[in-house]
Amino acid sequence: MALIIQKYGGTSVGSIERVRSVARRVIDSARGGNKVVAVVSAMAGETNRLIDLGKTVSKNTEGREFDVLLATGEQVTTALLALAIEEAGRKAVSFLGHQVQITTTGSFSRARIESVNADRTLKALEDGYIVVVAGFQGATREGSITTLGRGGSDITAVALGVALKADRVEFYKDVDGIFTADPGVCPDARLLPRVAYEEMLEMSYLGAKVLHPRCVELARRNNIPLVVRSSLNFNPGTVVVPEEELMEYAAVAGIVCDKNQVKVSLTGIPDRPGVLAAIFKAVAEADINIDMIVEDVSSAGGANSVSFTCGSADQAAAERVAKKLSAAYPGGAWGTRSGLVKLSIVGAGMRLHSGVAARMFSALAREGVSVYMVNTSDIKVSCLIESKYAELAVRTLHEVFELARPRGRAKKTARRKR
Amino acid sequence: MALIIQKYGGTSVGSIERVRSVARRVIDSARGGNKVVAVVSAMAGETNRLIDLGKTVSKNTEGREFDVLLATGEQVTTALLALAIEEAGRKAVSFLGHQVQITTTGSFSRARIESVNADRTLKALEDGYIVVVAGFQGATREGSITTLGRGGSDITAVALGVALKADRVEFYKDVDGIFTADPGVCPDARLLPRVAYEEMLEMSYLGAKVLHPRCVELARRNNIPLVVRSSLNFNPGTVVVPEEELMEYAAVAGIVCDKNQVKVSLTGIPDRPGVLAAIFKAVAEADINIDMIVEDVSSAGGANSVSFTCGSADQAAAERVAKKLSAAYPGGAWGTRSGLVKLSIVGAGMRLHSGVAARMFSALAREGVSVYMVNTSDIKVSCLIESKYAELAVRTLHEVFELARPRGRAKKTARRKR
Repeated sequence: MALIIQKYGGTSVGSIERVRSVARRVIDSARGGNKVVAVVSAMAGETNRLIDLGKTVSKNTEGREFDVLLATGEQVTTALLALAIEEAGRKAVSFLGHQVQITTTGSFSRARIESVNADRTLKALEDGYIVVVAGFQGATREGSITTLGRGGSDITAVALGVALKADRVEFYKDVDGIFTADPGVCPDARLLPRVAYEEMLEMSYLGAKVLHPRCVELARRNNIPLVVRSSLNFNPGTVVVPEEELMEYAAVAGIVCDKNQVKVSLTGIPDRPGVLAAIFKAVAEADINIDMIVEDVSSAGGANSVSFTCGSADQAAAERVAKKLSAAYPGGAWGTRSGLVKLSIVGAGMRLHSGVAARMFSALAREGVSVYMVNTSDIKVSCLIESKYAELAVRTLHEVFELARPRGRAKKTARRKR
Repeated sequence: MALIIQKYGGTSVGSIERVRSVARRVIDSARGGNKVVAVVSAMAGETNRLIDLGKTVSKNTEGREFDVLLATGEQVTTALLALAIEEAGRKAVSFLGHQVQITTTGSFSRARIESVNADRTLKALEDGYIVVVAGFQGATREGSITTLGRGGSDITAVALGVALKADRVEFYKDVDGIFTADPGVCPDARLLPRVAYEEMLEMSYLGAKVLHPRCVELARRNNIPLVVRSSLNFNPGTVVVPEEELMEYAAVAGIVCDKNQVKVSLTGIPDRPGVLAAIFKAVAEADINIDMIVEDVSSAGGANSVSFTCGSADQAAAERVAKKLSAAYPGGAWGTRSGLVKLSIVGAGMRLHSGVAARMFSALAREGVSVYMVNTSDIKVSCLIESKYAELAVRTLHEVFELARPRGRAKKTARRKR
């Protein structure tokens, strides 16, 4: 007997037939005395429909009233799933964000959860109900409806898992779990039965869209096991667990590729304190989401160069800022390079293996792939490369790091040097 | 400076353009320091769309979860109107049923309001906000969302009016107000500038769909003036006031016609105590909404006949019950007549005028219109007639009772005898 949180995303509840199938799945899980809480997103496309509707009356697409509008998407799915479960003969009760007492900050459109009161949900589970909770929403202490921003329903699921001390939180997706690489690009890609929180976190930050980093981080801090599996079949999926529990331990767990990256460079920038700060203040004020930053002290007469990357959606804004900034310094110049991808290898085992970065660079060089920028942490190496090489590079690294073979237990050698 | 509740129905907010126009109207009303609370319905067609969606997963179309589903309709309009008001430059805040603390009974789909806490709304009005409230919904003391059933948004408006001690509650409709008869049937029909609560109540019960009887009754008990006017123009509409305030006082205020009536008759029923009770118990158990009842003691050997009317939607069920009941008594027989309408004249002045019913019957007889059943109260006379005569009868009575002429002050003659 376990307490299980199951989270179903927009595609998993994207049609009435899918809602019915989720109802059957939830009931199956509740058999044998398991307590089940289902957290649901809006039906696929519904949130966009509501945003478009809101835009027809308001230029402002954020704030209190927009959240009231968007919250209806999850409310509809919540009611439909509860009705479908009841129709199939089980007791069900739905709770919205304010009813399950998900208390959030008042920053509408991107509220943060402050607390979850488990009492009402636990009581309903005790009374034999399957509980259906609307994802993505909460309420301020004053009772205003809030939404949690991108990945919001995933966060609802983990926050409930923490509050209810759930045995696990299961995410039902349209993929079978976490793969060593995108199976659409790499036919040899293999499902990872287990990954560490830290690996999952890096993969999420690096562009794997499967789970939102905020929810992985919350699970890691509270030690709640996560499961990523398909809503279309009964395969076991991937379990996300603490690194200590990971018995199998190769250097590299997986390869992630984040598309549509742009590199912006400023050259001839004076090498004196405060200049870098001024540059990134201007970038931040233009609301540009930057990712990697590389600074390079040039040999020529005390001038620096600095480069950063951002998504192509921010390219125009970044170019305007770069133009303005370079004009402010005598000898300043700027340039952008688009059509890039950020290719990353991730693995907690890197801490124990040496030479991982070197193997990556050599493999890319052998295929004639230039690297425009590099960024590392203790469990990942990221390279900026031309997008035309993206698939080739993924397949090459997949082979070089032998990812098609199950992860072996790590040899406890010296800590790697890159 | 007044506190005004304005209620906008589904047609008045049926498109984005209409929502914008309601926003302008609300802002206009708030000029000069008036405090305005707008109560809104779901956009026209939205509630039916949600019901159809719910039906695809559930045979049961009532209960807790169906209310969660339906409540989203008003929530969307509430958010859109608040956004449109903000876009036009005024401060607005939306409240859902549970936020404005409309506490109801737990009878889902047809909950009754138990209390309304005015504090939050009054505070927002004090702070200079235009308040937009979702009609049709409330919450139980335990916090479950409920809906108020037919006419629910009208009730929300009046209940808020009572709690906030509003100066008036204005209903914005797609008609100009209350007419002496349906202007589509009777070209001479005249807008009534004022009607009494009691008249409005009778008209509502008798089939005028303008206001729900529950909301008229609530306003009457609490002496809140109601205004019925068009959302398409700035005509003053009809004010509903206590009878005492009604200076102009003809016998008949207006004519109402309720279509699709069926008369069901049982004959040869034993004339002994308990038989009638058994009959109407069976009818009630079949969930048939009956309207008029006429019992007639027959001369032949202690047998009775009894007739009742119901809407044509209940015809099949009523016939099944009648067949079963008549079979239970030796000599029992049953029959139905469909294609009937209930034609009613209503007027508080009837209490002061005599011969009103007689004038009605004579006028109908002159036109060759048979009357199948009659029902009266102190301020109305209703006749069941064939639907083919409906329009002719309305026009005839409109002329006979001189309704095209403004209502004169009543002559205080003896109480009428019919």
